Amino acid sequence: MSKEVVKIGVLGCGTVGTQVVRLLGERGRDLAARAGAPLEIVGICVSNLQAERDEAVDRSLLTTDANSVIDEADLVIELIGGIEPPRTLVRRALSAGKTVVTGNKALLAAHGPELYELAAEKCANLYYEAAVAGAVPVVYGLRESLLGDRINKVTGIVNGTTNYMLEQMDTAGRSYDEALAKAQELGFAEADPTADVDGFDAAAKCAILASLAFHTRVSLQDVPATGIRSITEQDSADAAFFDEKIKLVAVAERVQTEDGEALSLGVYPAVVPQSSALANINGAFNAVVVEAEAAGTLMFTGQGAGGVQTASAVLSDVVAGASHIAHGGSAPRENSYANLPILPASEGCHRYRLRVNVPDELGTLAELAQIFADEGVSISAVHQSANEDKVSVVLSTHKVAQKAIAKIRERLEATGVHVASVLVLEA
Amino acid sequence: MSKEVVKIGVLGCGTVGTQVVRLLGERGRDLAARAGAPLEIVGICVSNLQAERDEAVDRSLLTTDANSVIDEADLVIELIGGIEPPRTLVRRALSAGKTVVTGNKALLAAHGPELYELAAEKCANLYYEAAVAGAVPVVYGLRESLLGDRINKVTGIVNGTTNYMLEQMDTAGRSYDEALAKAQELGFAEADPTADVDGFDAAAKCAILASLAFHTRVSLQDVPATGIRSITEQDSADAAFFDEKIKLVAVAERVQTEDGEALSLGVYPAVVPQSSALANINGAFNAVVVEAEAAGTLMFTGQGAGGVQTASAVLSDVVAGASHIAHGGSAPRENSYANLPILPASEGCHRYRLRVNVPDELGTLAELAQIFADEGVSISAVHQSANEDKVSVVLSTHKVAQKAIAKIRERLEATGVHVASVLVLEA
Repeated sequence: MSKEVVKIGVLGCGTVGTQVVRLLGERGRDLAARAGAPLEIVGICVSNLQAERDEAVDRSLLTTDANSVIDEADLVIELIGGIEPPRTLVRRALSAGKTVVTGNKALLAAHGPELYELAAEKCANLYYEAAVAGAVPVVYGLRESLLGDRINKVTGIVNGTTNYMLEQMDTAGRSYDEALAKAQELGFAEADPTADVDGFDAAAKCAILASLAFHTRVSLQDVPATGIRSITEQDSADAAFFDEKIKLVAVAERVQTEDGEALSLGVYPAVVPQSSALANINGAFNAVVVEAEAAGTLMFTGQGAGGVQTASAVLSDVVAGASHIAHGGSAPRENSYANLPILPASEGCHRYRLRVNVPDELGTLAELAQIFADEGVSISAVHQSANEDKVSVVLSTHKVAQKAIAKIRERLEATGVHVASVLVLEA
Repeated sequence: MSKEVVKIGVLGCGTVGTQVVRLLGERGRDLAARAGAPLEIVGICVSNLQAERDEAVDRSLLTTDANSVIDEADLVIELIGGIEPPRTLVRRALSAGKTVVTGNKALLAAHGPELYELAAEKCANLYYEAAVAGAVPVVYGLRESLLGDRINKVTGIVNGTTNYMLEQMDTAGRSYDEALAKAQELGFAEADPTADVDGFDAAAKCAILASLAFHTRVSLQDVPATGIRSITEQDSADAAFFDEKIKLVAVAERVQTEDGEALSLGVYPAVVPQSSALANINGAFNAVVVEAEAAGTLMFTGQGAGGVQTASAVLSDVVAGASHIAHGGSAPRENSYANLPILPASEGCHRYRLRVNVPDELGTLAELAQIFADEGVSISAVHQSANEDKVSVVLSTHKVAQKAIAKIRERLEATGVHVASVLVLEA
């Protein structure tokens, strides 16, 4: 089964691809010793042969013909991004029994189950550590290290762009627009920031993490996402007042329902205590907290983005894949045996923090409280403040279904009370 | 290659063993689905058949004959602890090509290389996630997730007992003896606390981590260990004064010497800034920080001890091992290709913090400073305080070899200056 050389095909040579090619060259001997066989790049597929490239990239390997690269390789690294052509190319490689390493979260969140199945059917290995939280080895953590445990909850800060922006709003007092402009200026946010600020990037990662943690097929559409566009300076000020921070979190949790166990999923801005571990994850850092029945609470932190950091995750997968090619064995298989039902967003239960602006009239608080009581929502804390002629009330609730909060919001607005903000309170 | 049932033999049924047996029973179906084959316990070897046991332990499986358990099993879980008989038993299992899962850090630190070699020779799989930092998946992290990267430094808080004691000294103002008594009362420290307080437990874990991170054979004797016995209330007070904490750290670092690269290893109490991630690892929690060239800084945290937490790590290894038995493939092989030389303790370079008590005489500080200058040690900060007739000077140095500090200490003591404490400053 032993191979003399493991032939590597690289699809895509952008920021991450360039770093991967560079490190494969610079560290070739080290990586070969660890894989147990020399690694040789046999082709690099790019869309533009003429583009300027880092000198680490051997131009004689460049081609625009992805299929020929796949056909010649034992191991294919897909770093093109997006759904197509990657889906077709990854399918081609897996169908031929080749090992695939990808960092493509969009592809996995949309078509993961189909690809996992194809890989299993063809006895091909599929690796994707780089698809979630960059260099933070949380895919390995869930796929292997916690395989003997029962996971109850996974909570992650998995989008560096929004984490940076929220930090700017929290600590530098910037508005949402200012924070976005700053992030764009530094290259942390793209010209069209939708995928980041609306939570879609985090939702894709949430789908991948939830699939692994709960042995259930979860795709992007299963993860309701609320981004950070609606976060105001008032929200930041509230958080500071209560010794809290606002973080965009991706959460996947095992919950008990009347019909048995289910999965509650979501991406949303949440209020966390300053003293919590997540509150202290700053800048472009990512963190994933895993709560498991036996292991207790584990946290993985590290840099969640960046070309060279992501390349580290890709290369670990390459070494693992190459070692299996050279000496036999296989990657852990995805497993959807648990197949938990997924709770509709409206049934998801959280603690909430609402800020409402009310006319300064006698009995207002009593009326407010009555509406919460009518809907069966119990209030854990109230803070009222008056500013000129405006009275603001900040209410924290006990755990309650999202639909109850939606109902309360509707009723409040109908009585002329303005609900300025609704955020989730994470413990 | 597929097997109908994976037969599991358990050696040792103490705190961890009992939890492993219980969870194998309670979660049998889940674990079988993940491993791809049912798992069946075929024997549990204990030293005392009559002892009271948790009802989860099927007494009909108990035996005192370890060899028969090994011979009947496909996968052997060794949880006896200590060097012998585990060494002989693990060798017997590996020699027969059986998979071994162990949480025995003492065995691996003393005889790891011999066992890794035997496993490779016999194509047997050896797993040991539980040997370092309990449920924190740092063995997987180093063995697999970072396989494509170049690790420069590993820093760990890997002993919960001393971490608890230092926290008691730091925050509750207890003396070393009081903290030890409290830890013993709570069952965190044993009647003979030597392995913990003298740093030997941490040194064993350091040897295992260093072997994995640097692809070099490191054993317990290679790791110079200084424990926490000498830490005084004055040290805790100094740390508080400078907004720092004292932590017992295990460090393995790649360093440049005149002759090329080498490994610097050690376990010692170090002073860390309050704001650092390590300073905030409290109680029985463990943390391992890995600095890698491409991935940057990663941190793994979680509960480092406890029966059920450690059982989680054991079971993950069991599922991985059983999956390989059922479907082929193998654990990652240990690799000592890099074979870096290990620096003698005296050559290890650190920043140091010294507290010296001096007679309150004119020119004392100048004399002190001259001794440092003579030895080529540059001082980064000085803080002098007088208390009644005693003058204390706290000096921080730039990075310097341990032997230079030893020389300075000798010269200071010779001039009648009492060196009350020498601690390492970790950045």
